[in-house]
Amino acid sequence: MTEAKLISSLNEENLSLLSKTYVPSRLLLGPGPSNAHPEVLKALSLNPIGHLDEAYISLMSDVQKLLRYTWQCSNRMTLPMSGTGSAAMEASIANFIEKGERILIAKKGYFGNRLVDMSSRYKAQVSVIEKSWGQAFSFEEIKYEIETKKPSIFAIVHAETSTGVLQPLDGIGEICRKNNCLFLVDAVTSLGALELLIDEWKIDIAYSCSQKGLSCPPGLSPFTMNKRAEEKLVSRKTKVPNWYLDLSLLNQYWGSDRVYHHTAPVNMNFAMREGLRLIANEGLENIWNRHITNANKLWDGLENLGMELHVSKDFRLPTLTTVKIPPAIDGDAFRNHLLRKYGIEIGNGLGELSGKVWRIGLMGFNSSEDNVNRLLNLFDTELGKFTVF
Amino acid sequence: MTEAKLISSLNEENLSLLSKTYVPSRLLLGPGPSNAHPEVLKALSLNPIGHLDEAYISLMSDVQKLLRYTWQCSNRMTLPMSGTGSAAMEASIANFIEKGERILIAKKGYFGNRLVDMSSRYKAQVSVIEKSWGQAFSFEEIKYEIETKKPSIFAIVHAETSTGVLQPLDGIGEICRKNNCLFLVDAVTSLGALELLIDEWKIDIAYSCSQKGLSCPPGLSPFTMNKRAEEKLVSRKTKVPNWYLDLSLLNQYWGSDRVYHHTAPVNMNFAMREGLRLIANEGLENIWNRHITNANKLWDGLENLGMELHVSKDFRLPTLTTVKIPPAIDGDAFRNHLLRKYGIEIGNGLGELSGKVWRIGLMGFNSSEDNVNRLLNLFDTELGKFTVF
Repeated sequence: MTEAKLISSLNEENLSLLSKTYVPSRLLLGPGPSNAHPEVLKALSLNPIGHLDEAYISLMSDVQKLLRYTWQCSNRMTLPMSGTGSAAMEASIANFIEKGERILIAKKGYFGNRLVDMSSRYKAQVSVIEKSWGQAFSFEEIKYEIETKKPSIFAIVHAETSTGVLQPLDGIGEICRKNNCLFLVDAVTSLGALELLIDEWKIDIAYSCSQKGLSCPPGLSPFTMNKRAEEKLVSRKTKVPNWYLDLSLLNQYWGSDRVYHHTAPVNMNFAMREGLRLIANEGLENIWNRHITNANKLWDGLENLGMELHVSKDFRLPTLTTVKIPPAIDGDAFRNHLLRKYGIEIGNGLGELSGKVWRIGLMGFNSSEDNVNRLLNLFDTELGKFTVF
Repeated sequence: MTEAKLISSLNEENLSLLSKTYVPSRLLLGPGPSNAHPEVLKALSLNPIGHLDEAYISLMSDVQKLLRYTWQCSNRMTLPMSGTGSAAMEASIANFIEKGERILIAKKGYFGNRLVDMSSRYKAQVSVIEKSWGQAFSFEEIKYEIETKKPSIFAIVHAETSTGVLQPLDGIGEICRKNNCLFLVDAVTSLGALELLIDEWKIDIAYSCSQKGLSCPPGLSPFTMNKRAEEKLVSRKTKVPNWYLDLSLLNQYWGSDRVYHHTAPVNMNFAMREGLRLIANEGLENIWNRHITNANKLWDGLENLGMELHVSKDFRLPTLTTVKIPPAIDGDAFRNHLLRKYGIEIGNGLGELSGKVWRIGLMGFNSSEDNVNRLLNLFDTELGKFTVF
């Protein structure tokens, strides 16, 4: 038997007496995570099974079929990566950039910055076009830059969670093909909530997250790539400089070979299957319409209360609304009040919009008329209490 | 309202009619994942909360305190990384290797190979010392190699899941310090199950997983590093060539600043807190003794049935036993029989031991006398049915 050698100072607080794990109940109407669907939480808490068990292999196939439907693509390589959204973002850079290749990044918010940071770590030549936080790019601007800069990859965020802008993507895929460039789309805040047609829009590579449109907890990041992207991957001169996110290795596990790569986060994949099943059950078009309807209700309601929205209606994002904090209001105090007194989370602005806007999310399971009414009612009755004199 | 544009072939199987997510109940006595503790599964399925919510920040602190206790270390930078074990393995390489630096890897099984692959992706000069699959290194061998090769990092697997070997680590930390070398330990199959004293053994960097000793589902990878490792990280000449696993960024979120890095897998962290709380509640020494007692019971029982164990008792691993498949037995058929008829998973050998041994895990919640008796009973009554004539 082992002799006692434990460091007593590590247990000064008597950790053996800690209470059972508990967290307060929240309605998450911020930039994400959103609440998970109750059926998803049930699936999440099933007993784990082996990652090479035939029952798990069959569940993986379901997840892939359901993801293809949700992405609206026929791509063989469609899978959830074993990390949060940023992991698949990094995979999209790490696998398709070799040292010195040019990436063109259309930056109009916080997550454009992240793509720039990642690309530089993989030794890309990074070109950036920029818009102020709250604007979208026009098709002509993007076309001109792709034709001029001739990048190997063009990357853009479909739905900018930091600004509340929905970027139109029509026609960009065609321009990328004509210019021998891969079209990479960040769909973190659109997949499973807003119209997104990977094949029809000629998107070559896309990634998302589990905790928004898919009504799952955070932890997985859906990814898809088409044949053009596969060809680029296969023709690399160097090994992918990232093992965990190497798509050629992941392909051997998620493809037909089922070769062990890493131990899959099986329970998160149980949840993912259930979240996607609920999407197929409701139907994508119904879901897209639900998100638009509830967003319109929120926007109208806020404007009726005299609030101003940060983004013009032409490219306003239904899943995430940026609303200006009125000059006379203590934004943080109101936000904390909603959380502490009513258990409702809304978000502060990120980066340069911090303190200037609140961010209100209506995503997946949380996009409901009830939630809109509940929030509008609190804006109506509680906001005035936080006037700064 | 959106017009219908969906690709009908993606829904040929009518995905909307898929049944609710379900997986069969399994007793996981293979190399991992192991079964999660029922209380852990309850915590896992709590409603998500925001990753910057004060309730979550407080839970993060609990997780860190509990991890320090479980690692037996006082390291400030102690946290669960947001990926499965291999993610933290890669973080341990990516953050501490700069191009051209030498890493010495003591390879005695499958996971040593993985360290070699990862290190070469980060442009290390890789030196390898090797043992056959089933052996451990002696202190003298390691001392000689460190003194001769003068690496910046020495990496070794504490508990080799592919072979069933427990590597003694006594004295190696001292040798590393004398030779200005970081001591990196893979504790995937030892943390929370076997004696492991990070501070006392002078281990500079270590990582593990959630699904073995910690009785959680797979998806997180506990990591710890001490001041020596922090100094090495701070003195890097180049940015860490991996964004998701960059410990200087993770430090800002898990350190006192709580700066947003990626959206944390909050539910997996609820589970992690509960798994660790149960460990503190039982007490590390009780847990270590429980694992040794049950392993001995399994070993004696198998030998009484005439089975031969692959690893000599001197460095046999209590959490994972490799047992030789008798020449007259169809190993795969027996394994599949246990899974399909009794819902019990044991593992096939990995790599060069495939088809030669079974791998039996007794880890965390699953290390119990009942499980040992149940398995021994089936070896006794069922094995003979799979004789090959």
